[in-house]
Amino acid sequence: MNDKTTMNWDRQICFHPIGFVQNDYDEPVGPHAMRDIPSRIILDDALVGALDGLEIGQSILVLFHFDRSPGEFEMHQHPCGDPNLPKKGVFALCTPHRPNGIGVTQVELLKIEGNVLTVLGLDALNNTPVLDIKPG
Amino acid sequence: MNDKTTMNWDRQICFHPIGFVQNDYDEPVGPHAMRDIPSRIILDDALVGALDGLEIGQSILVLFHFDRSPGEFEMHQHPCGDPNLPKKGVFALCTPHRPNGIGVTQVELLKIEGNVLTVLGLDALNNTPVLDIKPG
Repeated sequence: MNDKTTMNWDRQICFHPIGFVQNDYDEPVGPHAMRDIPSRIILDDALVGALDGLEIGQSILVLFHFDRSPGEFEMHQHPCGDPNLPKKGVFALCTPHRPNGIGVTQVELLKIEGNVLTVLGLDALNNTPVLDIKPG
Repeated sequence: MNDKTTMNWDRQICFHPIGFVQNDYDEPVGPHAMRDIPSRIILDDALVGALDGLEIGQSILVLFHFDRSPGEFEMHQHPCGDPNLPKKGVFALCTPHRPNGIGVTQVELLKIEGNVLTVLGLDALNNTPVLDIKPG
């Protein structure tokens, strides 16, 4: 079992982009507006082989970096930014303003052409760095 | 729309642990063996308020760092490490050996006591750094 001595809270855990999102949304447009639009993911050419086994039409999880969100966050926020809804803690919300700015969205895989994936329902802005793709 | 000039593939994207997993599993025990065991997540004391709004019994996503996996990975791997299954690309698999070692597991929230969450079904080893908690 671990104890305080093995938990290194200052540890930096670093990743690099495996791809970038490409769509028409350079600014946030509300939490649900992007759920119905297709986006493209431009994958690192070196990783195209890693797509083998994915099937068109299947559901995948896309992990990405909320790179447009500032490093600070409020511990309690209104769901969907709606001031009429009571605030909750950030771990009870999908807000991009969180301790570690990682987004996870389930999307539908529409097409793969070389290193370009087309997906439906990715609520990430144009140029967002993609961190991982998983079945899901 | 983005183009090659806006995609900085060398960018480092760094996070820090928000918590650590605590259970009896210091070594991998197969992909499914840990799905039925409870684990504890020791949360950073400063982030306890971020749990407000989570409800006992609900499903949450736990994002964590596969810190025991080496930096290298094979582009094609056997599902669940089973040599009888045909290899697939890593993005079609949940293998810990992937370009960015981030795990995402849906678990059941059993208990919250101060900064300690008890969850069911977290397939992460003892001392694994936790990166995020989301409803899901």
